[in-house]
Amino acid sequence: MAPPRPTHSETIVPEPAAAPPAIILVRPQMPQNVGMAARAMANFGLAEMRLVAPREGWPHADAVGPAAGADHVLLAARNNASTAEAIADLRFVLATTARSRGQMKRVLDPAEGLAEIARRASAGERTGILFGPERSGLDNDDVSLADAILTFPVDPAFPSLNLAAAVMLVAYEWARTKGGGLPFAPHPGTPPATREAVVSLFSYLEAALDDAGFYPPDKRPVMVRNMRDMLHRMGLTEQDVRTWRGVVRALAEGRARRKA
Amino acid sequence: MAPPRPTHSETIVPEPAAAPPAIILVRPQMPQNVGMAARAMANFGLAEMRLVAPREGWPHADAVGPAAGADHVLLAARNNASTAEAIADLRFVLATTARSRGQMKRVLDPAEGLAEIARRASAGERTGILFGPERSGLDNDDVSLADAILTFPVDPAFPSLNLAAAVMLVAYEWARTKGGGLPFAPHPGTPPATREAVVSLFSYLEAALDDAGFYPPDKRPVMVRNMRDMLHRMGLTEQDVRTWRGVVRALAEGRARRKA
Repeated sequence: MAPPRPTHSETIVPEPAAAPPAIILVRPQMPQNVGMAARAMANFGLAEMRLVAPREGWPHADAVGPAAGADHVLLAARNNASTAEAIADLRFVLATTARSRGQMKRVLDPAEGLAEIARRASAGERTGILFGPERSGLDNDDVSLADAILTFPVDPAFPSLNLAAAVMLVAYEWARTKGGGLPFAPHPGTPPATREAVVSLFSYLEAALDDAGFYPPDKRPVMVRNMRDMLHRMGLTEQDVRTWRGVVRALAEGRARRKA
Repeated sequence: MAPPRPTHSETIVPEPAAAPPAIILVRPQMPQNVGMAARAMANFGLAEMRLVAPREGWPHADAVGPAAGADHVLLAARNNASTAEAIADLRFVLATTARSRGQMKRVLDPAEGLAEIARRASAGERTGILFGPERSGLDNDDVSLADAILTFPVDPAFPSLNLAAAVMLVAYEWARTKGGGLPFAPHPGTPPATREAVVSLFSYLEAALDDAGFYPPDKRPVMVRNMRDMLHRMGLTEQDVRTWRGVVRALAEGRARRKA
């Protein structure tokens, strides 16, 4: 007896969950721009570049310098004879373009486009984003292979994005969509000072200013409150309180020494 | 009698409302990167570049090509002897940096940083963002002149952003914060078809498929519903309905002709 015919779902090779989108550069003219695009991808956690018929051939030595160390992206970049071949295994494809193409596709901004890509990637779909040649952008036949259009909120008076810049914005939005954290946190420092320490600094400063004859008597209450406000706005830590006590002491004693 | 001393607020020169941030490039090494930064600024509606002691001097011919037409940005870019001089008239300054500096400053991501800049700009405050030299970034003394730190959600394994790329991300977030629209809308096309037209297409297709012997009788109801679902997912316009009627007719009549 012949084995049962596999159903469609059984023939699908499992795909890694939430794979980042492939970046597909269609007929790029300058190897330098391919390199810069690789760097931009690596900056924000993208690794899969696909090429369609680069004008200067592939691989190309001039891509290496501008990649600034993103060699893993360049080394893994496959060349393809056609856009259709480059996207064959993908399940959702966006086409980047700076102008309307008269095609009845949805038009997404980068945040919307990468949010949809992230949703689909989380469901196991492989996705990709097409970028056209530097001079002309994608042609209409390339755009017709995409599910939707992705465009950028550029100034209409100066809309022409550098190829690597467009890749950079997409990679950045991918990182944002994935909740990419910042590479470092604020300096931990010491915790905020206890209010006892802060009030003690207030008293110390105000006594020193009384001693220096700083306050006109009728203005003292409002001046004290204003100064306390300024000190509060600093969000003083324990260390800051110690520093300011030292500053006040130095100024006051320096004055006393000069008088002596 | 001497005129009354002006109060502080009377001496302030009125500032234009919601001015975009100044982009301040501190000791940039490569004029080409200054040019690319100018292009990135113009892409997203920024125009005010300030320079601090560019290594190759200023102005520089090598900046012009990479600016790709953003000549207005380059021509207006002032050189300054120091960072302090470059920011003297500003009221809020962010320093971009890729690593922690041990300074107790707030650390903002681009969306947070540009949102705060936009809020302050709307209140009439002039603002600016510092970018350091390509190789080393801002030094700690430059960072100490800033109100807060702006950093990017880069991959910690590959954090080094190209100078123009960092400017690009900031300019892009400015455009987003200002609600920058996309440069074009989806193709208007024709409106969605009336449901009468859509149901008529269903009937036409189903009759043609009955005629072709497509449906196993016991499967017909579910197959009809599935096909209708697919057609619904297209969001058909009036023109689309006409196109599909033509497609069905051509296929059916071509088959009829081949039989004849």
